[in-house]
Amino acid sequence: MTLPQQLRTNALLTEARLRQLLSETVADAPPRLAEAMRYAVLGSGKRFRPFLVIESAGLFGLAPEAALQVAAAVELVHCYSLVHDDLPAMDDDELRRGRPTVHIAFDEATAILAGDALLTFAFEVLAHPDAHPEAIVRCELALGLARAAGPSGMAGGQQLDLDAERLPRLDAQDLDRVRDIQERKTGALIAFSAKAGAILAAAPPDERRALAEFGRLLGAAFQVADDLLDAEGAAAAVGKATGKDAAAGKATYVSVLGVEGARERLCRLQNEAISMLERFGGRAGMLRQAVRYVSTRTS
Amino acid sequence: MTLPQQLRTNALLTEARLRQLLSETVADAPPRLAEAMRYAVLGSGKRFRPFLVIESAGLFGLAPEAALQVAAAVELVHCYSLVHDDLPAMDDDELRRGRPTVHIAFDEATAILAGDALLTFAFEVLAHPDAHPEAIVRCELALGLARAAGPSGMAGGQQLDLDAERLPRLDAQDLDRVRDIQERKTGALIAFSAKAGAILAAAPPDERRALAEFGRLLGAAFQVADDLLDAEGAAAAVGKATGKDAAAGKATYVSVLGVEGARERLCRLQNEAISMLERFGGRAGMLRQAVRYVSTRTS
Repeated sequence: MTLPQQLRTNALLTEARLRQLLSETVADAPPRLAEAMRYAVLGSGKRFRPFLVIESAGLFGLAPEAALQVAAAVELVHCYSLVHDDLPAMDDDELRRGRPTVHIAFDEATAILAGDALLTFAFEVLAHPDAHPEAIVRCELALGLARAAGPSGMAGGQQLDLDAERLPRLDAQDLDRVRDIQERKTGALIAFSAKAGAILAAAPPDERRALAEFGRLLGAAFQVADDLLDAEGAAAAVGKATGKDAAAGKATYVSVLGVEGARERLCRLQNEAISMLERFGGRAGMLRQAVRYVSTRTS
Repeated sequence: MTLPQQLRTNALLTEARLRQLLSETVADAPPRLAEAMRYAVLGSGKRFRPFLVIESAGLFGLAPEAALQVAAAVELVHCYSLVHDDLPAMDDDELRRGRPTVHIAFDEATAILAGDALLTFAFEVLAHPDAHPEAIVRCELALGLARAAGPSGMAGGQQLDLDAERLPRLDAQDLDRVRDIQERKTGALIAFSAKAGAILAAAPPDERRALAEFGRLLGAAFQVADDLLDAEGAAAAVGKATGKDAAAGKATYVSVLGVEGARERLCRLQNEAISMLERFGGRAGMLRQAVRYVSTRTS
């Protein structure tokens, strides 16, 4: 199977599981809240993080079915973060994946609550026996996801990103800061997604570390590619306003390194990420392709 | 020990554990975010939910130390909900426990992120081995907390509460709706707190059910008392604006039942709650006092 086919297959499996979880388990939620949660999660998105969960689990011989609950939980957290990041008090975006953002389609209070509910629901999904038969594995997954998404991870990255807007324009000496922001904001959840398969398979520590480091490098490459896309891409292709980060004075790799410097950095990160997969041999073919994919995607 | 003494002791223990968790584990978070989280959690609050966790665990012979991590996790969730409920797009409150709310003391984006981070951190605290040596118990606690706080629980209750403001004034026929809102918004987390001790002690199903039902009734009594306090209390005593719920057209027991009807309901709920404690005999003396306490507190 080619990477686009595999991405599509995994996305369909993830979508089906998310749809099932959001209809069955949330059946008792207020209709407006349930509707906003489904709007935020279903029907769009590349499901790149679920892809990583499923493929990393596949390295250890686990079938997609064994990883789907965890893949869904990670995507719920990703979607919550998008809903809250889009809020007027945050990035103030009215368009996401070519559709009105949740606070536009519903209202601000509902968007805040839908994000809160999606985040909370992700931990219900992870703590449920459907995630893995062993409770110790479920706890390790919940601990890992909480750390990746919490104050030292994704939420912290968003805070630093907002703080950076208030600071004077960045120069090359701020590279460490840009990297710190992006490793938290985007990298932490991608790194957890790549590591999740090793946790699900109870893999030995060195293999977990290799996958976590792979995920960290892939997440960084993903962010550099995203910054390049924002600086160069066409609005129609990505379905959201472009050049917006630069206009907002946001800390990006392009603003610090320039376009050529960012391209070089992307290439190096991709090579380093691929080197982390060596020990997995031919089984890691799809993940290798995924590394290349981050610099070729147009949305 | 009297109830006020026990409340104070448990509150001090909880405060110390929260302070430790928020300084050690969140040491790597951005300073502004960590500061907002500490501001939202430390230094005030009655710690009524932690009291219930510690006392319900005590029914089964567990020392406070064995329940503190769970008590802290529940309080983190409670504090996150206050931060988000106070936001301009939600209840738009500028004062909480006599101090400026988080979005006033910091800013709106930081308040949203601090709430998100506290909620996420609660699950890190619960999934950590410090919460309980057995992973299956930690998973059950995480599952229970997620359900109590999530779309069918607390977040759903807040959504229904906001929806109710848009509806015409309530009358007696809306009692079921008021009860549904309050059982989710306040009751679910209080019920989980009371049940948590039984989960921590791996108590048999009938004792878990009795404590969960006790918690549900106590939570309802708590809310009726809160509505009476809001309708009758003095602003200075409760440290927040009073009569505000009525002004906002919010669904409350007093608006539906009147003051006398609400008082009668409170009394009945208290008696029913106490009857759930019968099987625990003299060990439940402190929880019995707590039931009476909800109608005598002035803040």
